[in-house]
Amino acid sequence: MNQHPIEIQIERADKAIVAEDFDTLLQIYTKDAILVIEPGRIAQGREAIRKAFESIAIYFKNGLQVRQNGMEILESGDTALALANTLISAPNLPEVERKATYVFNKDSNGTWLCSIDNSYGHEIISKNA
Amino acid sequence: MNQHPIEIQIERADKAIVAEDFDTLLQIYTKDAILVIEPGRIAQGREAIRKAFESIAIYFKNGLQVRQNGMEILESGDTALALANTLISAPNLPEVERKATYVFNKDSNGTWLCSIDNSYGHEIISKNA
Repeated sequence: MNQHPIEIQIERADKAIVAEDFDTLLQIYTKDAILVIEPGRIAQGREAIRKAFESIAIYFKNGLQVRQNGMEILESGDTALALANTLISAPNLPEVERKATYVFNKDSNGTWLCSIDNSYGHEIISKNA
Repeated sequence: MNQHPIEIQIERADKAIVAEDFDTLLQIYTKDAILVIEPGRIAQGREAIRKAFESIAIYFKNGLQVRQNGMEILESGDTALALANTLISAPNLPEVERKATYVFNKDSNGTWLCSIDNSYGHEIISKNA
């Protein structure tokens, strides 16, 4: 079965995160993209996202591993939602599964770029809401 | 605290669903919007979405109730992701909570319209993936 171009982008992003290749990683985000660093903390824009990933790499002892365990993509025009079971581990983090939500926009060249990267899914909803 | 315009749209949609006011409901969707009817079944476009909601209303004995129990909105330019704990019940359905995911796009008038309506969240990921 052919992979959806967004699946390929997510694979590229995961490999770039593991390799700490942030130049490649940032190419996958839109200019104004939002990254949920952790519930309640957001980075917006490529430079802020780069700094966040640099901190995340150090926090996880330069040993972060990311892989996807099932994914669905819903596409409507130039907007798409990817839902993924994302497995994350590190030397100081036993493997956890996150219900990740990624929004992509198709640019004028037809390339899908990530505009909203929220690997925490519904964990960002405050409990006292 | 001021409500986000997308929260107001979701409230309008929920009221319209309960009232079976599908004319109002369809105004909240983009032309090419996608609705997940149930895992594996999708309606695309306003007319298909109207038909789906008509069937859903009958299926739930014209007694569907929808309310939100916590919501977060992530906004990046003209695209936004709403994550909600959505409570659904009906005469023939004890209340269930779904981890709903809604994508909105801002149109040229500045109005946020729903382009992807997936109240099932990660339930749409096939288990044998």
